[in-house]
Amino acid sequence: MLTRIARPYLLFLGDITEPRFAKTAFGLRDWAPEACVGELALPAATVSTDLPRLTPAQAWEKGARSVVIGIANRGGVLAPEWIPLLVQCLQAGLDIVSGMHVRLAQHAEIKAAAERFGRNLVDVRVPPALIPIASGRKRTGKRLLTVGTDCALGKKYTALALTRAMRSRGIDADFRATGQTGILIAGDGIPIDAVVADFVAGAAEMLTPSAAPTHWDVVEGQGSVFHPSYSGVSLGLLHGTQPDVIVVCHELGRERVMGSEHYAVPSLPDTIDLHLRLARRTNPDVRCAGVSLNTAALDRDAAEAALATHAERLRLPVADPIRGGPAFDRLVEACLA
Amino acid sequence: MLTRIARPYLLFLGDITEPRFAKTAFGLRDWAPEACVGELALPAATVSTDLPRLTPAQAWEKGARSVVIGIANRGGVLAPEWIPLLVQCLQAGLDIVSGMHVRLAQHAEIKAAAERFGRNLVDVRVPPALIPIASGRKRTGKRLLTVGTDCALGKKYTALALTRAMRSRGIDADFRATGQTGILIAGDGIPIDAVVADFVAGAAEMLTPSAAPTHWDVVEGQGSVFHPSYSGVSLGLLHGTQPDVIVVCHELGRERVMGSEHYAVPSLPDTIDLHLRLARRTNPDVRCAGVSLNTAALDRDAAEAALATHAERLRLPVADPIRGGPAFDRLVEACLA
Repeated sequence: MLTRIARPYLLFLGDITEPRFAKTAFGLRDWAPEACVGELALPAATVSTDLPRLTPAQAWEKGARSVVIGIANRGGVLAPEWIPLLVQCLQAGLDIVSGMHVRLAQHAEIKAAAERFGRNLVDVRVPPALIPIASGRKRTGKRLLTVGTDCALGKKYTALALTRAMRSRGIDADFRATGQTGILIAGDGIPIDAVVADFVAGAAEMLTPSAAPTHWDVVEGQGSVFHPSYSGVSLGLLHGTQPDVIVVCHELGRERVMGSEHYAVPSLPDTIDLHLRLARRTNPDVRCAGVSLNTAALDRDAAEAALATHAERLRLPVADPIRGGPAFDRLVEACLA
Repeated sequence: MLTRIARPYLLFLGDITEPRFAKTAFGLRDWAPEACVGELALPAATVSTDLPRLTPAQAWEKGARSVVIGIANRGGVLAPEWIPLLVQCLQAGLDIVSGMHVRLAQHAEIKAAAERFGRNLVDVRVPPALIPIASGRKRTGKRLLTVGTDCALGKKYTALALTRAMRSRGIDADFRATGQTGILIAGDGIPIDAVVADFVAGAAEMLTPSAAPTHWDVVEGQGSVFHPSYSGVSLGLLHGTQPDVIVVCHELGRERVMGSEHYAVPSLPDTIDLHLRLARRTNPDVRCAGVSLNTAALDRDAAEAALATHAERLRLPVADPIRGGPAFDRLVEACLA
């Protein structure tokens, strides 16, 4: 059983005044709009998702079944000011869903209220209990995995954009989430970096089971096989997913590894080559369809020039999914080729 | 804090009648004889380590501080027949140490007795609580890691034999344990495959901290970067250890991957090449000193011929540590070169 969440959501913003702490709420609004009925905030909040502001009872009336703590605060804990509103949510019939480090049930008042009102407390950072050891056996259906030169440079966004593009072409595709925000967007998934090491590949197999031959699982990559801290997570995910296609994600201008600045970010050719070599172990037919290049640091003309230069150099489609356009269409077509 | 165990040991054999279920007890007798004061068994037991058979009180008198459950039974649980004797051990002042899957404290009678007599219950499969994310920073001292073409083909034995050989040459060397039997032999270590995936490399850094420039940590490898189930564990351990030297372990005649027989065991040249490529990420100066070849399936002449053939083909020292001899001396010298 994957971690599964009752939908749709009421997005909880607490007393937030800094938009960058509301990434999860914005991600849900942008990528799972059909799953968001409104937002809930304290009067002190100055940030909004522009969704209707609802009381817990109104949200329930509009169909909401979970309130999602869509914000991060320093320390990643439940602020005392939030508690009365969250208890109201439980009373109104909503589960509470959290991607914070601290577990919801560790808060005595929240735990007691959930028991009193018969609601679930869902911690999306907690992996499922029974994950098998990977079998390594081939499964039916197609799989795409986004991989990267480093952490936090667009692997989730790329997987979401590719899933959306495949669906818009009439292809049966599912985004498969491996991190907390992705899980909230998809409504299920496995927080792969929280799985016990021996079971990472097994979790990836569980996440992408056998499917119809024309079905695509588009899997959110994690970390990087080049990252000195997280490479084991990335390799277990790569081997367990058995991707038919990889898309390599990179941020233009990033030269040092995030959190380990004494390491250089690897080159794109080296990244493509090593991933294919490793991935062939569980899928000899794996291929790299292209590169997803995060060009957020550039203006439009410079970005287009950079995409063209990289495409020519690598002889592969290179696109920025945030910019879309013909380059992204070429990348999507290459994935499906 | 690594998992640490009070020594020396009394080896518990229960009611064992099958020598192959007493691997842990035999491993301890062979590799940590100074840590074993005797054995404890029920009258029904027909297997012996040939150490003195002692009562718990006699063992305490002879210095024992832990009784080690040195056997595995089907299901990996505490048999009801063992309980009275184990309670006697707690009463006599001994901790109980277990490498079984089930946790000792889950047995109500054992748990109550440990509390009553103020003793510790040590589960060596449980990793320490506070493992940091790997920093990737270079540490002082030398590190050797045994890696392999597959699981269970001699990585622990090779690391132990290399540590012993280094010490006999007057070199300051420590065996660093990453699995349950290794941890019992060393008296401490980290069960690396039980660590949460994000922390595997951090656990390896913790296990092999900065040391004197001439000191060697000889690290017990786990799994294989080629294994479809466990590769993530192996890569995290490789990156976190930052080995100066790797020794590749292989079993002659093994052609299919253990537990995943639909996979071929990789070739030695490919195994050496991929490990060096991956290991260079955190230690650009890493080198492969040679190969540890498990020749258990061959007679003496055939084994010597096989070692010579492989050494010539790979242009590296190739030895079977169980057979020792000049070939193993050459492997040790190459590690230290």
